[in-house]
Amino acid sequence: MNAAAAGPATYPFVKGHGAGNDFLVLPDPDGRFRLSATEVAALCDRRTGIGADGLLRAVRCDATLEADGLAAEAEWFMDYRNADGSPGQMCGNGIRVLARYLVHAGHCPPGALRLATRAGPRTVHVPHDKAGLDGPVTVDMGRPRLSGLADVVVSVGANAWPALQVDMGNPHAVVFVDDLADPGDLVSPPVVTPADAYPEGVTVEFVVRRTPFDLALRVHERGVGETRACGTGACAAVAALPAGPATGSYTVDMPGGRLRISVLADGAMRLTGPAVIVAQGTVSL
Amino acid sequence: MNAAAAGPATYPFVKGHGAGNDFLVLPDPDGRFRLSATEVAALCDRRTGIGADGLLRAVRCDATLEADGLAAEAEWFMDYRNADGSPGQMCGNGIRVLARYLVHAGHCPPGALRLATRAGPRTVHVPHDKAGLDGPVTVDMGRPRLSGLADVVVSVGANAWPALQVDMGNPHAVVFVDDLADPGDLVSPPVVTPADAYPEGVTVEFVVRRTPFDLALRVHERGVGETRACGTGACAAVAALPAGPATGSYTVDMPGGRLRISVLADGAMRLTGPAVIVAQGTVSL
Repeated sequence: MNAAAAGPATYPFVKGHGAGNDFLVLPDPDGRFRLSATEVAALCDRRTGIGADGLLRAVRCDATLEADGLAAEAEWFMDYRNADGSPGQMCGNGIRVLARYLVHAGHCPPGALRLATRAGPRTVHVPHDKAGLDGPVTVDMGRPRLSGLADVVVSVGANAWPALQVDMGNPHAVVFVDDLADPGDLVSPPVVTPADAYPEGVTVEFVVRRTPFDLALRVHERGVGETRACGTGACAAVAALPAGPATGSYTVDMPGGRLRISVLADGAMRLTGPAVIVAQGTVSL
Repeated sequence: MNAAAAGPATYPFVKGHGAGNDFLVLPDPDGRFRLSATEVAALCDRRTGIGADGLLRAVRCDATLEADGLAAEAEWFMDYRNADGSPGQMCGNGIRVLARYLVHAGHCPPGALRLATRAGPRTVHVPHDKAGLDGPVTVDMGRPRLSGLADVVVSVGANAWPALQVDMGNPHAVVFVDDLADPGDLVSPPVVTPADAYPEGVTVEFVVRRTPFDLALRVHERGVGETRACGTGACAAVAALPAGPATGSYTVDMPGGRLRISVLADGAMRLTGPAVIVAQGTVSL
C-alpha cells in the first residue's frame, strides 16, 4: 500500500512463532496491500517496527497474480518475505504459523489445509483439538533435492567446511560441525563459495549429529541473519545426512526449540513443531 | 496478573520507541496487573514475545503503592522494567514514549505533564502541535550526581578504561574512548570493577567527544544489553565531560538516532528527542 502523504499507512498484524522463529502475519484476504521491500523491512525491524524474522502476507489465491493457476488447489497464498523484504519461496515454520492463524481466525477449519506458496502448494495439518493459540502443526514439506553440481565451501573466519547443496523449495548449504560453537557468533553472514553456486542467496545450516536420529543445528537465514529455528533448514539437515536419511522419525534441536521430521518411504518429509500466536493489533509506519 | 490455569493471560499493549530505544507500554490505569519478572521478560522477548528494551506499565498513582505520596504531584506512575524484568528507577526515552502514549490516548492534554517515577517526579513536555503518533518530546531530567568514591574501571576483552560514576536517578559508568568500535560487539556485558561499586548493576556508556558540544556514544544497558539509544546515558555522558559540562545545548548521536540535551544554569538537564508510537494491540502469554 502506498502511504498517503496525509499520514502513516496502518496495517493489521498478528505476531506468532514456531520454536522461536517469529513472523508477522499480515491478514490481506482481498490483496489490498502492496508492500515494498523497504516497508517489509520497516515492519520487521525489531526496534523501530514490531520485529520478526519474516512477514507472511495472507492473501486469497484469487486476489493475487502470484498465485496464478493455484486457485483451484488452494484458497490462500503465503506471500512470504524475509526480514530484509526479499521474497522467499517457502518457509517451514512460517507456513505452520500461517495455518495456525487461518484456523484460529476462523478462515479455515482445522484438519488438512492446502496452502499455495512460491514453491508450489503445500498441505498443512492443524489438529482438530488444537485450534487455539498454540499446539503442534505439521506440514508436508515434499522431497528434498540434493545437487552436487558445485564443490561448495562455507567459511566463517578461519574455519571452512565442505557443504552440501539442498533445495527444499528454497536454497540451503548444509555443513556438519564438531560443535555448534564452531561458527562463532554468526553476526556476519557465512561466506559461501563459489559465489555463483547460489545466485539467489542461501540459508546455511551448521549441524551436529548427536545420534543417528537426533540432530542439533544453528542456522543463518538468507535475508534475515541467525534465527532460533528454521523449518526448511531442519529438513535440509536431515536430507544431507551421509548416505541419505533413512525412513523414520528425526528430532532436530535448535536454539529456540525442537522440531520433528518424519521421512516417508518415498523420501518426502513431514515437519512437526509448535506454532504459537502471541499478539495481534495494528501497526502504523 | 496471575494467569488462570484456564488459558493465557492477555494484556493490552502499545509499542513505541525513542531513537530506536523501544518499549512496550502496558496501559493499566487501575493497577490490575501484577507482572512478575518472568512475565515481563516473556513480553520483552523479541522472538517468543513482542520484544522491547523495556516495559512501561502506565498506572495511576492512586492505584499503586509504589507511588505512595506522589499522587498529589502526579496523576500517572511509570512502572519501568528492564527487558529482564528487573525494575528501573528512571528511563529518559521511556518516559518520553510514555508521555507520547498518554497524550495520544487522550489520558492527558499536551503541554507539561508531571509523571511519577521510582526516581521521583519528572516533568515531560509534549508540544501542543505534536499530539499525534510521533514528534519530539522533552523531559526535565534533573541534575546529575557524580560520585568519585571508587576508582571504577570498565573492561571489554583486553581493553580497559577508567570510568566516571554518574547517577541520573539510575546508575551509570561513563568511559571516553577513541573510537566507538573499541568496545567490540558488546554481546557480553562489560566488566565493571570493583564489583561493589554498583550493587544494583550499572549501565555503561562508551563516548567519543567529536566537538565540545557534540558527542557520539554506544551504551550497554543494565538488564537489557546494547541498545540503540539511552536517554539517561546521554545525560550521564554530558555530565561526565572533563571539568563538567558548560551550560548550553549538546547533541548526542547514538546508533538509533540523535538526542539533544540542554544544560541549564543550575546544572539541570533537559533531554529532547523523537518519541514514536508504532503499534497497539493485545498480547497473550
